[in-house]
Formats: sequence, structure tokens, C-alpha cells
Amino acid sequence: MRRLRLLLAYDGTDFAGWQIQPELRTVQGVLTAALTRLNGDRPVSVRGAGRTDAGVHALGQVADCGFAGELPDAGVAHALSRMLPDDLRALAVATVADGFHAGRHAQAKVYVYRVDRSAHGDPFLRRFAAWHPGPLDQEAMERALACIPGRRDWSGFTAASCTVEDKVRTVFTARYAEEEALGRFTFVGEGFLTHMVRNLVGTLLDVGRGRFTPERITEVLESGDRSLAGPTAPAAGLFLERVVYENAPGGSA
Amino acid sequence: MRRLRLLLAYDGTDFAGWQIQPELRTVQGVLTAALTRLNGDRPVSVRGAGRTDAGVHALGQVADCGFAGELPDAGVAHALSRMLPDDLRALAVATVADGFHAGRHAQAKVYVYRVDRSAHGDPFLRRFAAWHPGPLDQEAMERALACIPGRRDWSGFTAASCTVEDKVRTVFTARYAEEEALGRFTFVGEGFLTHMVRNLVGTLLDVGRGRFTPERITEVLESGDRSLAGPTAPAAGLFLERVVYENAPGGSA
Repeated sequence: MRRLRLLLAYDGTDFAGWQIQPELRTVQGVLTAALTRLNGDRPVSVRGAGRTDAGVHALGQVADCGFAGELPDAGVAHALSRMLPDDLRALAVATVADGFHAGRHAQAKVYVYRVDRSAHGDPFLRRFAAWHPGPLDQEAMERALACIPGRRDWSGFTAASCTVEDKVRTVFTARYAEEEALGRFTFVGEGFLTHMVRNLVGTLLDVGRGRFTPERITEVLESGDRSLAGPTAPAAGLFLERVVYENAPGGSA
Repeated sequence: MRRLRLLLAYDGTDFAGWQIQPELRTVQGVLTAALTRLNGDRPVSVRGAGRTDAGVHALGQVADCGFAGELPDAGVAHALSRMLPDDLRALAVATVADGFHAGRHAQAKVYVYRVDRSAHGDPFLRRFAAWHPGPLDQEAMERALACIPGRRDWSGFTAASCTVEDKVRTVFTARYAEEEALGRFTFVGEGFLTHMVRNLVGTLLDVGRGRFTPERITEVLESGDRSLAGPTAPAAGLFLERVVYENAPGGSA
């Protein structure tokens, strides 16, 4: 029995999110089925670094699982390449220290939210960005973004469905940049709660549109009042870009 | 009554091609329905520069139609933006000279075929590229590409379903380039027959793989024998990038 670490990319459009659920097509479910077959039909428990929601994409999700099969790492990678559907790909497979835990040892996650800024809506971005053609006051957005980094209670930006008791998390950086017609929010933090990035983006876009002043971020944070925040931005724009590990038993990913 | 020229972009994945057909979702069909409504339910005849196949995309398809409505060009553009689905977008609308004909006045078309060269298959390119992870002999492909430009009879590269009698067309340029993990074939010609670009790409990739020598292109051209060519490359990789007009009554597009 050894422990495998997997680096995954997926187009989340046709998945009901990461977490395995009966009768739904989920990333964890499809991956577990493939790994169980490779493991000689012995059950496999797959753990992910983060539970992406339905429709959310990943460029670099990390998962781990125990594996009793004799196939070497390259053989597992090759077999997964053939077994997994074309919207879920294993980019790398490696044997890591037994104690590695994709979720617990993640030191930071990088999420990117993409905004289609084209006047007419890019038909090739409709699954991979939210469309906002109108003017955005980037200076106001910069001031709002500056209120985000730090160790804070994110209750006001968290979905009501989030059952985690302790809503204190550290966000390291929050940025926005536009290149040609594509806007990109980047958030780096130790962890993010349910809908937190999408609620931040919805609020930041409302600041950019002039619906809120930049101080709204602090007002939501201090009051913890979700109703003061902007709408939850659509899942299609969100990507788990990377999970950062340092000094973890599994090494860097 | 005036004549409108439309610049269109579409994700061809969910369209049964350009040409209007009963009970199928086609680009011409969806566009005709929207323009007919804007034209006060008077019938509208929409002509395209090229008939893209099912699954083929467009970054710059051009169409024209007669229009009796009083809405100015900007109003038509704005209304289409709201009425058209998010996989079909009108990028520009302009009134042109009455004699303009999107098909007959096109002097050249630029088609791009995209190849995903990543080892594991990029899940975000599966609708917009064909996946070829193996080695490609680019030098052999260059020699094969060099046999393409010119005024030739393309019978050997044309689908059996193509009913055009005269299969002589001029191709101006045929190129291939790779940037990071994305390969791009670019073909510029006065016009292309049914499946011609996809059959050329299928044959060129077989040259790159070493299945054919570069001379195969000339053999197919001289014999006109379709069975000597490679397979038809999948529709998903093909984009009508641009239609070139010069000295046409409608001006440049």
C-alpha cells in the first residue's frame, strides 16, 4: 500500500462539483471509480485539496489516495489518461510519503476568477468567464481589493449553507488585472469558505460599477451581514489554479 | 430596404453547421429567426460567406441580408446582442451597398485548425482543438505544406458529398506553427470545398507522424483519389477566422 498524489485539471461545466454524491457526476466520483478499477476493485478513498462547487474549474487541483495496486506511477498516469473522460485529466501522478494529506497540508490555494470584458460577449469564453461588458472603475476596485488581505472572519462573504463553525481564514493577496478583453481576479489564501471567492467577486464588480463604494468590503466584513454583499458571481468564471505545498510530507506540487 | 453586413463569431459545438435545415439548430437558422423578428416579421434572407460544417467554429464569419426595418445599425447590433444565444454573437452590423454579397465578393478566407499538443489533453481545449500528443515531424510537415499553395483541382481532398462540379480553387498560403502546447494550421485561399481543410489537416498530421511521406500531398492532388488521403480531422479544431473583402461594394470587413 502506497500513497499517490494526483495533479488534476478539469472543465467543471458538466460536473456537479468535486464532492462525491450519489447519482451525480462529480469529479471525486469519476476519479474514485477509475482508481478503484486500477486498484483491482479494492475500494479507494480520494481526498481533494479543495471542494470546488458545481461548474467551477480546476487547472491544478491536488488529490491523494491510498493505492495497493502494483502499477508504477507512470502506469497509473497512462491508465488514467485512457480511462478518464476528456473533461477531467490527471496531469501528474507521484508516490508520496504515507502521511501526505492533500487538504490538510495545503498551505495556500490560488483561485482565479475570469471576466469577459468584450463588448459583444466572447462565445468561446461563455463556459470559462462571466461576461461584464460595461465600464468598471478599476481605481475603486483597487481600493476595495486592498481591504481583503489579512486574517479575518469571512461570515459576511460565506454561503448560508457553509457548515464550518470557524470562519476565520487568512487571505494573502487579492488582485485584479485586465489584458485585452479578459479581466482576472486572483486570490491567494490559506483556504476559502463556500462561495467566498464568488461573493467577493460579485461585491467587487458592484464596486466597479459604482453600485457600492470601496468601503463596502469592510462593512460586510465587520457586520458579517451577507445581505450587504453583492450577488454570488457565476461558477463558470472560477478556476482553482494551484495548490501550494511546502514542507509537507508529500513535497511540493 | 437596405442591405446589412454582419460580422459573426460562434462556438460551433452545438450547431448543426451554418446552413439552415428544418428542425436542426443551425447558425443561419437562429440568425434568420432573430433578424425576421427585428424586421417586423417580414421574411429575411441571410447569406453567409462560407458554409461551415456542424461543429466548426467562426471568429469572423460574414453574412449579409436585406432589411426593411427602421432600426439603425447600432440598434440592430444592440437588439441582436440581447436576442442571440451566447454561443452566437454579432460583433458588428453595418449598412453596405445594395450590391454587396458576402459569398460572391469574398476574395479570401482564412481558416485555422488548432491542435492540442499537451501530453495529457487540455480539458479546456477539447471543444476547440484536436488532441495529438505524440511526436510530429515538423520538417516533413513543412515540405508537405509547401505542396499546397497554388491553383489546383482539390478532388482528392474533397468529401464525396460535395456537389460542386468545378473543384479547382486557389490556395494562397498553408502554414503550421506551434506555440507552447498549441499547434495551429493556417490556410488562406479564395475558397475551400466540403471537408477540404479537415482532409488536408488529417493528411498533414499523418505526414507528421511518419505514416505518409510529404509527397503524399502531391500524389493525392494528381490522382484525385480520396482514399490516398488521411482521415478527416475532427470538426472541433476548425475555425473560420476571417473573410477578406477588397474592392467589394460593401467595402472591407
